[in-house]
Amino acid sequence: MKQEIPYKIYLKESELPTKWLNLRAFMDKKPAPLLNPQTHAPMTEEELSKIFCTELARQELDDTSRYIDIPDEVRDFYKMYRPAPLVRAYCLEKALQTPAKIYYKFEGNNTSGSHKLNSAIAQAYYAKEQGLKGVTTETGAGQWGTALSMACSYFGLDCKVFMVKVSYEQKPFRREVMRTYGANVTPSPSMTTEVGRKILEEHPGTGGSLGCAISEAVETACGLDGYRYALGSVLNQVLLHQSVIGLEAKAALDQYGVTPDVIIGCAGGGSNLGGLIAPFMAEKLQGKADYQFIAVEPASCPSLTRGAYAYDYCDTGKVCPLSKMYTLGSGFMPSANHAGGLRYHGMTSTLSELRHQGLMEARSVEQTSVFAAAEQFARVEGILPAPESAHAIRVAIDEAMKCKETGEEKTILFGLTGTGYFDMFAYEKFHDGKMTDYVPTDEEIQKSLADLPKF
Amino acid sequence: MKQEIPYKIYLKESELPTKWLNLRAFMDKKPAPLLNPQTHAPMTEEELSKIFCTELARQELDDTSRYIDIPDEVRDFYKMYRPAPLVRAYCLEKALQTPAKIYYKFEGNNTSGSHKLNSAIAQAYYAKEQGLKGVTTETGAGQWGTALSMACSYFGLDCKVFMVKVSYEQKPFRREVMRTYGANVTPSPSMTTEVGRKILEEHPGTGGSLGCAISEAVETACGLDGYRYALGSVLNQVLLHQSVIGLEAKAALDQYGVTPDVIIGCAGGGSNLGGLIAPFMAEKLQGKADYQFIAVEPASCPSLTRGAYAYDYCDTGKVCPLSKMYTLGSGFMPSANHAGGLRYHGMTSTLSELRHQGLMEARSVEQTSVFAAAEQFARVEGILPAPESAHAIRVAIDEAMKCKETGEEKTILFGLTGTGYFDMFAYEKFHDGKMTDYVPTDEEIQKSLADLPKF
Repeated sequence: MKQEIPYKIYLKESELPTKWLNLRAFMDKKPAPLLNPQTHAPMTEEELSKIFCTELARQELDDTSRYIDIPDEVRDFYKMYRPAPLVRAYCLEKALQTPAKIYYKFEGNNTSGSHKLNSAIAQAYYAKEQGLKGVTTETGAGQWGTALSMACSYFGLDCKVFMVKVSYEQKPFRREVMRTYGANVTPSPSMTTEVGRKILEEHPGTGGSLGCAISEAVETACGLDGYRYALGSVLNQVLLHQSVIGLEAKAALDQYGVTPDVIIGCAGGGSNLGGLIAPFMAEKLQGKADYQFIAVEPASCPSLTRGAYAYDYCDTGKVCPLSKMYTLGSGFMPSANHAGGLRYHGMTSTLSELRHQGLMEARSVEQTSVFAAAEQFARVEGILPAPESAHAIRVAIDEAMKCKETGEEKTILFGLTGTGYFDMFAYEKFHDGKMTDYVPTDEEIQKSLADLPKF
Repeated sequence: MKQEIPYKIYLKESELPTKWLNLRAFMDKKPAPLLNPQTHAPMTEEELSKIFCTELARQELDDTSRYIDIPDEVRDFYKMYRPAPLVRAYCLEKALQTPAKIYYKFEGNNTSGSHKLNSAIAQAYYAKEQGLKGVTTETGAGQWGTALSMACSYFGLDCKVFMVKVSYEQKPFRREVMRTYGANVTPSPSMTTEVGRKILEEHPGTGGSLGCAISEAVETACGLDGYRYALGSVLNQVLLHQSVIGLEAKAALDQYGVTPDVIIGCAGGGSNLGGLIAPFMAEKLQGKADYQFIAVEPASCPSLTRGAYAYDYCDTGKVCPLSKMYTLGSGFMPSANHAGGLRYHGMTSTLSELRHQGLMEARSVEQTSVFAAAEQFARVEGILPAPESAHAIRVAIDEAMKCKETGEEKTILFGLTGTGYFDMFAYEKFHDGKMTDYVPTDEEIQKSLADLPKF
């Protein structure tokens, strides 16, 4: 007889994964390498080590080690908020009257409010190990900046965060959380960097952009002795660290003999989705099992569903390495969309390649329907989801409703990446009926794609 | 050999308490009864049933049943966020270099952000059982209003929240969380009630007060068919429901053979502290064990440390029953103190009587030292505490530092009632060095106490 499945499955601390899973090492056809933006030759570990910690540069290029040890110090930190719960959404199932069985892996039970902490603590650890003084980074909505601040505080590292000025002003709470963790938060563009001064001269009064903040963070890291730059998504190293999400989810399901049919995650840069699917996709790549994977992105920034698969710049400033990925063009400006974490023009190369090989589907959804799903979920499951996470909820509910029509008892697993406490202005817009949807036209996308690097 | 104690002890869902513990039933000398404000006779169940659900009126007066069954429907809801973790604060111990062993029961892992949900769901359940249409309540900082909104949403009840106008305007996020759960949120004073209109006429432009919001909520409940009023603290019924905190904490400690020496909680109305200490104090009252209990309150609103033990009004409007308690006088106006949940002039009668009998200590702490403790805790334990909760952290750290001096290996347990995501303006003040302390003079307290009811 099967065990009764509780509302929340918590692994024991002793069951925390001891190794991260490096998904690319399971792929026969690897994602294309990062290229030097000047020479167009593959980036070397030496080149990357000038920007990132040496060990992280190594991880960035490693596509053969299937598993990489999680350092004990990182596992100890994980124990403060992990294993994260895998929740059986009994209340949602009941509300939908669906025969589907719905599970979600909840990553919001930590002060950064999202899964970002999983990689932040690893990146801070390697910086500390290397004897660095600190790291720099950029943040838009603020979740990554918060996570890195927490991680640096734990290891006694300095943390310099360039926060997009408009967010710095509109999200003072996020800024104060970072300051609570001792981070130095600077609105970007700033007068502290060459690139910042240049932009302010050309565009006085600008609210800034993620691309500009990245450039300021990289310039600062490269100009200071004992500093490196840290990034919260898109990179291979980040997907590696985030595999802890999927490893825990699979271990929890395995304990109850449950196999998901459909696995759903929201995708901006791809760090959460790449982490969630890691062990399942590894099985699929080895022919051991089959799963349906669905990446969910906003209709306003549809890289996987409407972008080109090509080499492109990772940043709008065009100073970072080139990556082959699904992209809308590095100059694509997504309209005001409240899911700040999903406003990236590209997608991590691993997920892009998996999508290209037909191993993963992608869907785009409009934000009013996303907030409707968020509110429906919050009312029955209690948790107030981040707008980003609610993209996955939208499609999970859609799939569950299909099951209701067909009578199929599918098992659905989705990633609930974080909480929406700092997104209440967006909820307010939704409640007041002032939220609108925006879908770029084909012409807009083609125009942006015309600027892809040619070589 | 003892088991190694993990960072977080999670009880299994099957180990969730099946009964609440009614602390008053263990007391030989009972707390004094609530009195009718007109007749000064003890309130009857019939009188209370006009304001509260019948079952809750019964619970309010029950001082003989030692345990009361938790309804299955309430336990099912509890499973969405309970059992709550009991955390061993290894990182804090290490940072303090103390021989003390520190544990905290964390109640912030739910969308209301605090322990308030434990009673809100019980109150909503009994309202539903009685066939009511909805409930009314007031909220200041917003945690209780959020909790009750979530609970009502779950049972399909209407929820009308009167939110102190100044909070309604300054804390729009809290308001939007309540709206997400379908609650009707009205800034108080409002034109929808007689008392609201009267106050607005006398004080146009007033920012409102908790006392006024209570009066509006009670008036609305009494004037509408199928509605009752709900309150989040002070009442016996609330302490009863909150005993789930202490019962879980004790069960988790018992599994590892750990006995606390000192138990610490913040105290505003007393709901969290009363719940945390319930099973431990019950043992002490039966002579089965001894524990040191410390109630922590803000120096700006020191009812237990500097108030009188006397009958007083529970509300500033003087319409609610009289309660015998430690009080600063119902007209006491605490100065701006960011721990909104601790700004009550009185204290629940049970804790007041226990304090009076010398079974519990009380300490008051100043808010800058509270925020210093909050930040210190956040940096090593990850969790960003609510200012209210940080009062308990302050004294837990003080006690741990005493152990460092004396070499004692005391085991300290404290209640971490919630998270501070919506309190970042206060953190900002602290970071910017703009936070001040305030301690009322003896004259101010004596002046306020001169208005105690005389009979």
